[in-house]
Amino acid sequence: MIMVNIELLEKLNTNNKRIVSRTISKVENNSEESIEILKQIHSKTGNAYRIGITGPPGAGKSTLTNQLTKIYRKLGKTVGIIAVDPTSPFTGGALLGDRVRMNEIGMDEGVFIRSMATRGSLGGLSKKTIDTADVLDAAGYDIIIFETVGVGQSELDIAKTADTTLVVLVPESGDSIQAMKAGLMEIADFFVLNKSDRPGSDSAFQAIKTILGLRAHDENSWLSPIVKCIAQENKGIEDVYNNIENHKSFLESKNKLNERRAENYKIRIKGIIGSKLHVEIWNTKRENLLNQKVFDVVERDISPYTLAETLLSNFKNDISPNNQD
Amino acid sequence: MIMVNIELLEKLNTNNKRIVSRTISKVENNSEESIEILKQIHSKTGNAYRIGITGPPGAGKSTLTNQLTKIYRKLGKTVGIIAVDPTSPFTGGALLGDRVRMNEIGMDEGVFIRSMATRGSLGGLSKKTIDTADVLDAAGYDIIIFETVGVGQSELDIAKTADTTLVVLVPESGDSIQAMKAGLMEIADFFVLNKSDRPGSDSAFQAIKTILGLRAHDENSWLSPIVKCIAQENKGIEDVYNNIENHKSFLESKNKLNERRAENYKIRIKGIIGSKLHVEIWNTKRENLLNQKVFDVVERDISPYTLAETLLSNFKNDISPNNQD
Repeated sequence: MIMVNIELLEKLNTNNKRIVSRTISKVENNSEESIEILKQIHSKTGNAYRIGITGPPGAGKSTLTNQLTKIYRKLGKTVGIIAVDPTSPFTGGALLGDRVRMNEIGMDEGVFIRSMATRGSLGGLSKKTIDTADVLDAAGYDIIIFETVGVGQSELDIAKTADTTLVVLVPESGDSIQAMKAGLMEIADFFVLNKSDRPGSDSAFQAIKTILGLRAHDENSWLSPIVKCIAQENKGIEDVYNNIENHKSFLESKNKLNERRAENYKIRIKGIIGSKLHVEIWNTKRENLLNQKVFDVVERDISPYTLAETLLSNFKNDISPNNQD
Repeated sequence: MIMVNIELLEKLNTNNKRIVSRTISKVENNSEESIEILKQIHSKTGNAYRIGITGPPGAGKSTLTNQLTKIYRKLGKTVGIIAVDPTSPFTGGALLGDRVRMNEIGMDEGVFIRSMATRGSLGGLSKKTIDTADVLDAAGYDIIIFETVGVGQSELDIAKTADTTLVVLVPESGDSIQAMKAGLMEIADFFVLNKSDRPGSDSAFQAIKTILGLRAHDENSWLSPIVKCIAQENKGIEDVYNNIENHKSFLESKNKLNERRAENYKIRIKGIIGSKLHVEIWNTKRENLLNQKVFDVVERDISPYTLAETLLSNFKNDISPNNQD
């Protein structure tokens, strides 16, 4: 039986940022205790509305996040922000971004910001991000914003776990639209065209519209709009906010919010099981076995598929109930 | 016992493109037969030298691949190309690229080209690509080139499985360098600065040099160079070729080629086992169980971690040797 500090969980609320922060750190450690914490807080989650904001580097996602946060704060709502940055090990990108952000909204008592670096942890990042959102949800934050740079599938996967996902583009995003087209189509509940006073704004708008026009829809499906804004000058942010609210109402009226959350939980549960199996199979014993046998594969004595089967049988024997040690 | 068409495998060689193509299609199907084929051809693999070419969209990877291919052909070597494209469902990007390519080198008897779309299959793409490379290797192609758009982790993973990996950038790649910095550092055996006659070439060169300067190295480590070229005008391609050969010699002289291949096989074997377990666990029975129980998670009755544990126990019971049906 894993002991969890009950007092810690009782004090977990938006008025106690130090405890929120400490709980997230515990959860990130991925220990037995972290799973116990996540199990215990689950009944307190589900009240926060989760917003995913993604897009290419330089699209102005942080600025938009900050402006949106100010609107929610004016409405008396608390906001938790999870910023996923493709940190460079040299410039410390995430830290720098945080400092700018702290001046704007970070001193606000009702705002909690957590940065996560993608470096070297892409596989586990999605898990870490969603676990952190659960802590913020259980602490009582009304709104949770995932801000991710959508350069890869993993970042898109994170943005997708939100209740409403917006994709931020700028007039210059031509290449990104091209590269991410299929992925973007799939995840965007709506598009935000930021810096819409720049040249090329109209043609970017048309390009997105064309993509959207190809999406199949019927009367039960959500028609993803395109919202223009200039986040830096605080123009059009109310429109973005209204569209989030519209999408939320749509999901609730069609009873789709729980369905969407169920789909996300399914992906999450499969991920949890996948990681657990991975840890169980790649214990020291089997890593050693792999390290020994892999040179037989390099030397062409056995095929990688044959070695995989051998290791898998070995694992199955180990987990057989007759064989517990 | 799975029957494999032995005749097919006997005819698998560079003089019989139809058989090469058919074998790849069989392997891609991911059937029991495909695994049997991959097991049987393994002893014939290991002779091809594998080159990974990656970089952001528009960097000129296809043009560079074509020019490099011409050099290898002049030296009498056969070349297999696996092009991984982030296909758009609308423009059919991969097909279009192929048509241009076909005019240049596709009619050459000693060149085999296979395109793979990333759309909707990112998870399995790496497996498919490497399996295809094995078929080309067993067929006797001397050189195998993986050409991938390095927008995401999966594409970088594919490029990484090569013996030598080059990252192609252009003077305009500033944003991409920023976004992919950590990933690029890890995988690039050398950088190619294409379109190096364009403005900004010198500062891009310096930016890459700065990144490289920060990489730790000793006398046993490879110093990754930066090669300028203009692939469209066939300028600097010999330099690229020479650097591939230098890297190959380095790997061979330090006995690192087999080590590198062993590392790649380890990743591959873990992937094979992971997919096999995924298929076994997510059979219809357990998918149904998940579909039923997930709404208890949405309703906060049980946590996703608890449900994951239940499903995992269920799986372990099923695979126990006493419980085979």
